[in-house]
Amino acid sequence: MQIKLVFTDIDGVWTDGGMYYDQLGNELKKFHTYDSAGVLLCRMHDIPVVVITGENTEIVARRCTKLGITHVYQGVKNKLDVARRVAGELGVPLAEAAYMGDDVPDIPLLEAVGFSGAPANAPEYVHSRVRYVTAKCGGEGAFREFVETLLGADRVSASVKRWLEGI
Amino acid sequence: MQIKLVFTDIDGVWTDGGMYYDQLGNELKKFHTYDSAGVLLCRMHDIPVVVITGENTEIVARRCTKLGITHVYQGVKNKLDVARRVAGELGVPLAEAAYMGDDVPDIPLLEAVGFSGAPANAPEYVHSRVRYVTAKCGGEGAFREFVETLLGADRVSASVKRWLEGI
Amino acid sequence: MQIKLVFTDIDGVWTDGGMYYDQLGNELKKFHTYDSAGVLLCRMHDIPVVVITGENTEIVARRCTKLGITHVYQGVKNKLDVARRVAGELGVPLAEAAYMGDDVPDIPLLEAVGFSGAPANAPEYVHSRVRYVTAKCGGEGAFREFVETLLGADRVSASVKRWLEGI
Amino acid sequence: MQIKLVFTDIDGVWTDGGMYYDQLGNELKKFHTYDSAGVLLCRMHDIPVVVITGENTEIVARRCTKLGITHVYQGVKNKLDVARRVAGELGVPLAEAAYMGDDVPDIPLLEAVGFSGAPANAPEYVHSRVRYVTAKCGGEGAFREFVETLLGADRVSASVKRWLEGI
Repeated sequence: MQIKLVFTDIDGVWTDGGMYYDQLGNELKKFHTYDSAGVLLCRMHDIPVVVITGENTEIVARRCTKLGITHVYQGVKNKLDVARRVAGELGVPLAEAAYMGDDVPDIPLLEAVGFSGAPANAPEYVHSRVRYVTAKCGGEGAFREFVETLLGADRVSASVKRWLEGI
Repeated sequence: MQIKLVFTDIDGVWTDGGMYYDQLGNELKKFHTYDSAGVLLCRMHDIPVVVITGENTEIVARRCTKLGITHVYQGVKNKLDVARRVAGELGVPLAEAAYMGDDVPDIPLLEAVGFSGAPANAPEYVHSRVRYVTAKCGGEGAFREFVETLLGADRVSASVKRWLEGI
Repeated sequence: MQIKLVFTDIDGVWTDGGMYYDQLGNELKKFHTYDSAGVLLCRMHDIPVVVITGENTEIVARRCTKLGITHVYQGVKNKLDVARRVAGELGVPLAEAAYMGDDVPDIPLLEAVGFSGAPANAPEYVHSRVRYVTAKCGGEGAFREFVETLLGADRVSASVKRWLEGI
Repeated sequence: MQIKLVFTDIDGVWTDGGMYYDQLGNELKKFHTYDSAGVLLCRMHDIPVVVITGENTEIVARRCTKLGITHVYQGVKNKLDVARRVAGELGVPLAEAAYMGDDVPDIPLLEAVGFSGAPANAPEYVHSRVRYVTAKCGGEGAFREFVETLLGADRVSASVKRWLEGI
């Protein structure tokens, strides 16, 4: 089965779960440059990347803009509902979609998609419900590892070759 | 024995002990999203979470507001005194309360409560005085691990199930 | 063969790949003080250090100014092209240059230089294309380790001695 | 021999060596709360703590103010010279002083004091020149470990006891 759509959580997946608070009301998240290649690999295979997160920050909006992601859903309580609607609009059954998440609110969507993943440091009751646990922790490039895994080694090699030709 | 009240330190427990200073007088702390589920699990079991910290920052005030914690005691020198008073007001004996701390000022309260914990990277003379040392270091979700441990696997499973039903 | 010129990438090499975003449009990168000695060791051997990065930030400009690096190329799509031109201007064949990078866009230049390196946490398809994989991950002093490796233990010892005499 | 004076470097010792740069000219360093107890333990034994660093930032000035350290020397090129002068003023021979550093500019002072230390992740040519290599890396509480080591287990136990009595 080929995955045609990739959903992803942010905190704990694209980040290590860290939420940096300062004294003045500002906040930071730490993304990893390696995950940007996960998005690029999806684009090379015409697989839309859809961000669904419970938090709602300018931080995530800006990171998605930087990576050219237009499907960004923040402040979401029911991720499965949102994913169903988006998958419907894009004409892809959830069975041909993938999702990477790391905590309880991610479980319904993790159980509904065709290929699911969680980072190495997610809780055990999330690990036990996904198909693939990445070797990397969240924020270390776990999303890229997840994308490379669902594409498979051959398609990744071909993509790296094509990427190099385009430089 | 059921724990009816949870006290927690912040620096080194909810954070990895890091104190980020900038050039302009600002400061940051890094929290972990996983610990927010520790607070939520307590709420699901009607266990108040009480923050007691020696530092005094807007950072902690804001994090507690975000997580819906109203019992926040900052700039505390004698944590045992404050905990005794709060426990009294809430009508819970300290023997039915839990506390997670990581350093010398935490020891009196750690020794007074019914269930005590410290993160993996706390000093040995703290480890030797607590009931449970988490596998995780401070700032990696150690507080959540502590809460899940004091609740026990059955109650955690039931809570995850209930949480999922409420999404 | 003596290396006469060192090219280096930034994100994932001088940093751990982390890109810190805040709520207000600001961004941070975390450099490591150990890498500053890598630059200094090159200077002691009259080896220019040339930064080539795909990103384009004030952050990198300022770090390079701090370390006295004048050859800074940001927003570069084709790193091999830029390196060829710079090497030509400095009269050094690429075969006598070194490059440390960590991702796909670095591969063409990594394969063109006389000595190539990548940090421990780079993807396997980068590791397989370089001469030396550092024990350190990006942002932990991996660039310094790369420089010390290409200089060799004898020249590093002599440099440390000379550095100490100059204090 | 009892140590009567403790010198310490900052970057790579009190921090993990990280230098966070933002887009606007600001910079951050990450300290660890555990090291504050290292300073306190020294104070309990009337051992002055003297900071000597090659960098020059408001960050370090503020951290020292927070910890009540008044001997702060920044922008220092020759650390041994400064330490000799300060030790002279305080009437302590360098043989009865300790120093923790992590890089080449620290070596002359490391070799001049009675007790020297470096963090686990310092370069080998620093490790080989010090008496004690901490188990912890810089920024994880390595300075506290160094202080506890030079005091010895008995004096640390007594200090913890005295600290607890004073709460």
